Amino acid sequence: MLGNDYKQQNCSIARALELVGERWTILVLRDIFLGVRRFDDLQRNLGVARNVLAARLERLVGEGILEKVPYQERPLRHEYLLSDKGLDLWPVVVELLQWGDRYAAPSAGPPILLRHKGCGGVLGERRICSDCAQPLSVRDVRAEPGPGASARQASLARHR
Amino acid sequence: MLGNDYKQQNCSIARALELVGERWTILVLRDIFLGVRRFDDLQRNLGVARNVLAARLERLVGEGILEKVPYQERPLRHEYLLSDKGLDLWPVVVELLQWGDRYAAPSAGPPILLRHKGCGGVLGERRICSDCAQPLSVRDVRAEPGPGASARQASLARHR
Repeated sequence: MLGNDYKQQNCSIARALELVGERWTILVLRDIFLGVRRFDDLQRNLGVARNVLAARLERLVGEGILEKVPYQERPLRHEYLLSDKGLDLWPVVVELLQWGDRYAAPSAGPPILLRHKGCGGVLGERRICSDCAQPLSVRDVRAEPGPGASARQASLARHR
Repeated sequence: MLGNDYKQQNCSIARALELVGERWTILVLRDIFLGVRRFDDLQRNLGVARNVLAARLERLVGEGILEKVPYQERPLRHEYLLSDKGLDLWPVVVELLQWGDRYAAPSAGPPILLRHKGCGGVLGERRICSDCAQPLSVRDVRAEPGPGASARQASLARHR
């Protein structure tokens, strides 16, 4: 996505897309939701050009969707955490995931499963646990490799 | 968005974005959800270049998200309807709308309200009616101008 403004559009969807609709931005957020928080890890995981990743992160920090927090002093190193505004994008990411699982997953099945930490049930429609029927929020859920995960994804998950 | 493939990404979110993540695509779907179904109406409403709109519609038809259906024989004219696969994108659009309403709406409030046809309540979190608590689907809801609607949007709604 080159431009990021939708002129003439008085619409909350258009305004949301102006903030998160650029190419790579949703995948950057996905990775941070999954716990990948450092520049080099994000770059390696996404395979995106460093300047593009830097621009996306800077924009998300500027919009208050991410917070850039030091995790090491010498040399100074930062990681990226979701603000409340960023965490509130979880439903958007989940709905994209569920639609993709339904219509575009590998034949083996979903690459990722989101499970309710409490009971082990799978996150279902409307972000309700398919086992215990509890409405789930981002903190109630953990990601694990699904039947369609690549060997690399399964291995990464084991080592995190 | 220029390219539309995310190489290396074995992920349902990335695959979903390959289908609907191009610039304008979500806004085209938004308009069709709102009942704007004809090329010229879409073009006028979006203010997008005709060739871009034609490319987006062709892609969505090719992916089975839209169906191109004749509504007039002489001269032959078509409109674009959502398939079941397209209707299943409603949760993605709704979550973007709700996030935008929360973080990027005009000061007057949301430009659009989604109301439960049954009881007149507003669509709330998890697509549950904020009044009667019924889980709502796309066919249970009508759109109406909200407090932040422009005069043009309010007028269009009155004449539809």
